[in-house]
Order: sequence, then structure tokens, then C-alpha cells
Amino acid sequence: MIKVFGHKAPDTDSTGAPIIWAWYLNEVKGTPAQPVLLGAPNTEAAFVVAHWGLDMPEIISGVEAGAPVVIVDTNNPAELPEGINAADITAIIDHHKLVGGLETKGPIDITIRPLACTATIMHDLIGDDLARAPRGIKGAMLSCILSDTLEFRSPTTTAHDKAVCEKLAADLGVDIGELAAAMFEAKSDVSAFSDAELLRMDSKEYTVDGTALRVSVLETTAPKLVLDRKDSLMASMVDVAREDGADQVLLFVVDILNEEATLLVPNDLVKKIAEASFGCTVAGDTVVLPGIMSRKKQIIPALKV
Amino acid sequence: MIKVFGHKAPDTDSTGAPIIWAWYLNEVKGTPAQPVLLGAPNTEAAFVVAHWGLDMPEIISGVEAGAPVVIVDTNNPAELPEGINAADITAIIDHHKLVGGLETKGPIDITIRPLACTATIMHDLIGDDLARAPRGIKGAMLSCILSDTLEFRSPTTTAHDKAVCEKLAADLGVDIGELAAAMFEAKSDVSAFSDAELLRMDSKEYTVDGTALRVSVLETTAPKLVLDRKDSLMASMVDVAREDGADQVLLFVVDILNEEATLLVPNDLVKKIAEASFGCTVAGDTVVLPGIMSRKKQIIPALKV
Repeated sequence: MIKVFGHKAPDTDSTGAPIIWAWYLNEVKGTPAQPVLLGAPNTEAAFVVAHWGLDMPEIISGVEAGAPVVIVDTNNPAELPEGINAADITAIIDHHKLVGGLETKGPIDITIRPLACTATIMHDLIGDDLARAPRGIKGAMLSCILSDTLEFRSPTTTAHDKAVCEKLAADLGVDIGELAAAMFEAKSDVSAFSDAELLRMDSKEYTVDGTALRVSVLETTAPKLVLDRKDSLMASMVDVAREDGADQVLLFVVDILNEEATLLVPNDLVKKIAEASFGCTVAGDTVVLPGIMSRKKQIIPALKV
Repeated sequence: MIKVFGHKAPDTDSTGAPIIWAWYLNEVKGTPAQPVLLGAPNTEAAFVVAHWGLDMPEIISGVEAGAPVVIVDTNNPAELPEGINAADITAIIDHHKLVGGLETKGPIDITIRPLACTATIMHDLIGDDLARAPRGIKGAMLSCILSDTLEFRSPTTTAHDKAVCEKLAADLGVDIGELAAAMFEAKSDVSAFSDAELLRMDSKEYTVDGTALRVSVLETTAPKLVLDRKDSLMASMVDVAREDGADQVLLFVVDILNEEATLLVPNDLVKKIAEASFGCTVAGDTVVLPGIMSRKKQIIPALKV
């Protein structure tokens, strides 16, 4: 049985893409496969699984040496279980930059494309066999693309992602605006999470000019729900940074509907980073960055310490 | 202008695949591209370029930081110019195991498939646009597959490689047996090369149980031409190993037509490796290994020190 999984702290793409690919392996290729998660899915991913009537994948804590796995939506060992290189990696499907560090025992199928969403790549790889997919699989694909593109608002969106998404919506008779609104509302319900959980929910580590930054993004249609907690979030950053071996946590609250991000500014280091990176002037403990939606395309390339 | 290249010490696939992909980028995608080589091609590759009336690609000694490149037929930094990660890697097309070590600045097109030949992957990626390719491009594709599969004798050969090759031969009106024989004859003419050049011509380094081995393969239809030089080849191994920082050179002379390899046994270390790895008994300074054709599939997985 091949285990198919995405990255730790699973979002909609890292939850839906394993479900899609395990369906393809089981039903089209005749290869027994099981979608699994490397942690609890976020609230949007949980909504998507329930909305399309899918089974929530089991959460696993690690992989055994020699176990056959397919990795989707990442190629970064830091986002995968320890000892991933001891597993039998049989395929990788991803849309992130090549980080280096994953190794395979033999030649395998690796497909990385500069698209917004893993599910879009899977759509292309599955090809005509997608006609055999049940409604839930097509729905998961549709939801993954809406999630990763923020309903086509993110600058990572390509014309191909949009075209595939619109084709799926037409096929399923789904109103894209309604589905996206319901997904983003689910993602915006952060009431159940502690400050530390919010800071780690969608977070990646980068070292910029020698400074280890944990760059966290919260995409929401209700930024007020997060920003009302800014004092305790900023207090929690100190502990999260220390526990995770980072010098600083940066929290960008992305307002999906207004297409802007608010960066929390707890200290002079973040003030300096914000002004150097985004050409803004910080006066206070938050700064609004108009048009900033994508960590991959806009935040990481801009960061200066 | 994007430079397209394969690995150092270019064989037919690492010479032909850049020519094929540069044609595709220039003529189909409208992206200016130039095939180049990271060293002099081997005699088979030179024959293939001349046979199909192609221009011999320029040999380059390195790549500049930020220069756009496409890497084909390898993903191993050791087989690429120093500073490759400072170049702007725009795509990778390969059929080897993921080694780890290459990094890209952003998400790019990466296609790795467990097929025998890079040209087979390119055939699939180019799709219907291959109808627009001139005879020389299809011929290069055909020759790359014959070379990497040793005319379907190598255990790396897949049904898909063979089907693509046979389709191309039918399209071009080429007799596969005649073309392969001419290619292998060209590869077998080793008279112009020094012993050290022969030992490095098709050679990869592996560390097995702490011992650094340079594993060299010479595929030939005339093994006698090589084996007549075995005394001076074994003498040269000492210098080549020292200069390249290896503990030992292993030279496998692959007899393409008789489907066997002869391993040179210059000392007790190689005798021990041969007997532990291949279950043979060595009596003398060579040992014949029936059925051994592929470093990737048969030699490397078997090696024990």
C-alpha cells in the first residue's frame, strides 16, 4: 500500500491532492494507495473534505524505512517526516522551487510545474481518465485550485490554473464564487486555535541575510478576528521563535477580499525588515501592505533584514 | 538565450537531447535556445551528430551566475559545472535517480521519468509538435534511445522506450539494426584515446561502504580492442584514482553483442569487490560477468566492498 501525503500542517492542497492521487492510483492505475496527512488539516481543508463527502485521511506521525510513498505539494525535507529519504519514494508531484535534500534510490516519476496548485498538475497528468472520477474527486481538485489561487486573486495564479478550475466548475455545476466564499469563511474561523497554533498554521522557515525567520501567513476574509488578538499573538511570537530555533516570527494577515496584508510589528527588528523589504513606513505595531497576497511570489523574494 | 546541456563527458543522450530540446524551444515555443556540451562528445555521439547532418554544439567550460539554462540527462551537481546553483535553472529533464543538491530560485518545470533515455521523455513532452521536427531531430531522438538501451538489450529498456524508437524508425524509414551497428562501431573505436581518457570516458563516482569508487563502463562491440590494453589500463588506474580522489577505479568492459561484462581485476581489493558483489570466483586479472550490461540497474545496486 503506497501512502500519499503532502506537507506538515496540511492546507487544502496538501489534503486534497493526496486524496485525488490515491484515487487515481487505486482506480485508474490499479495500484493500492492510501491518502494520509502529516498533521491535523486546517479548517478550510476540513470543510472541503466534508463538503465533498470525502473520507478524512488518517493522520500519521512518521514513515517507516522502505515504505513506499508518494510526496505531493512539497519537495522540502523540512516539511516531511524525519527519515523521509529512508522511505521508498516512488513519485513526487509538486509546484514549489527545488530545495535540494530529497534523494531517491532509483529513477522515479517526478513532476514539478510552475503552476499555482498541485491539483492542476494532477489534472494534466490524469488526462482523459478524469472522466472516470467521482464528483468528490473533481470537487477536491476544484477546491484545491480555489484555495491556492485565493479564487484567482493570488499572483501565483496562471491562466492554466484558472482554465482548469472553470472547466471543473462547469462540469460539476458549481458556482465558483459561492464555493470560494464558503471555503474562505471556514479558513477564517480561527477561534478554536491558540496563538501559537495560529503562528505555526501556515508557516515556513527561511534564513535571510543570516537571520532565521519563521514566515507565517494567515489568509482570511475576516482579518479583524486575527488582529483583535494582536497583542497576545505578538507576545506568543517570542516563545514560538525560541521553541522553533528561529530569530523572529513574521505574521502576515492576508485579507483575501481586500487584497492586502497586515504585518504585525512587535519590535524594531520587524520594523526594519518591513521598511527595507516593502518600502513602507511603519508607525505603530501593524503595517498594511497593499496588494501583498503571496508568500512565494511577493513576500520571500522581497525580504531583506 | 537559454543554454541547454547534459552531463560532463557527453555521451549520445547528453549530446542529442540538448539538440532536440533546443530545437523545441526555438521552433515550437519561440524561446531562443542553444544546445551546448560540457566537454568533447564521445565517438558515438560525434558519429550521431554527423550522421544526421546536425551542427556539433559548442563546448562550454562553465556557466555564469544568473544565466538561463536547461539541464537534461542528469540532476547531479557533480556532473555539472561548478556554480550551477547560481545559474538560472529554468527546467530539468532527466531519467536518473534524484541525487539532491540542485536548487532552483523559483518553481520550474522538472520532469524526471523512470525511462531508459532522456529523448524518450522529450518525445512525450513534445507530443504532436514532433510532426514539425526535421529529419535530423527525429534521427537524434532515435539514436539516443538506441544508445541508452544498447538496442533494447539493456535492462533499463522499458516497453515505452522501445515503442517510441520503433515508431521513429518507421517514420524515418531507418533500419534499426543497421543504425545501431554503425553507432556501436563508432563507440568501439577507442584507438584515439589514452588509457586515462578511456577510464574517465563513461565514469561515475560512488562511495560504497566508505570506499570511494570510480565506476567506469566501456560499451563496445569489440571488447578485444580494450582488453588488449588491459595491462596499461590497470597501471593507469592508480594515477586516475589518485588524481580524482578515489580509492579505486573499476572498469567494466561491456560486450554489447554477447551481453556480458568483463571486469579488470588489478588487485586484491577489486578481487574482493567482484566476488562479494557478483558471486563470481576470480582467478586472474579479469573476470567475465554474464548478462551484466547496466551500471544503473545491475552494477551499482550489487556493489559491496
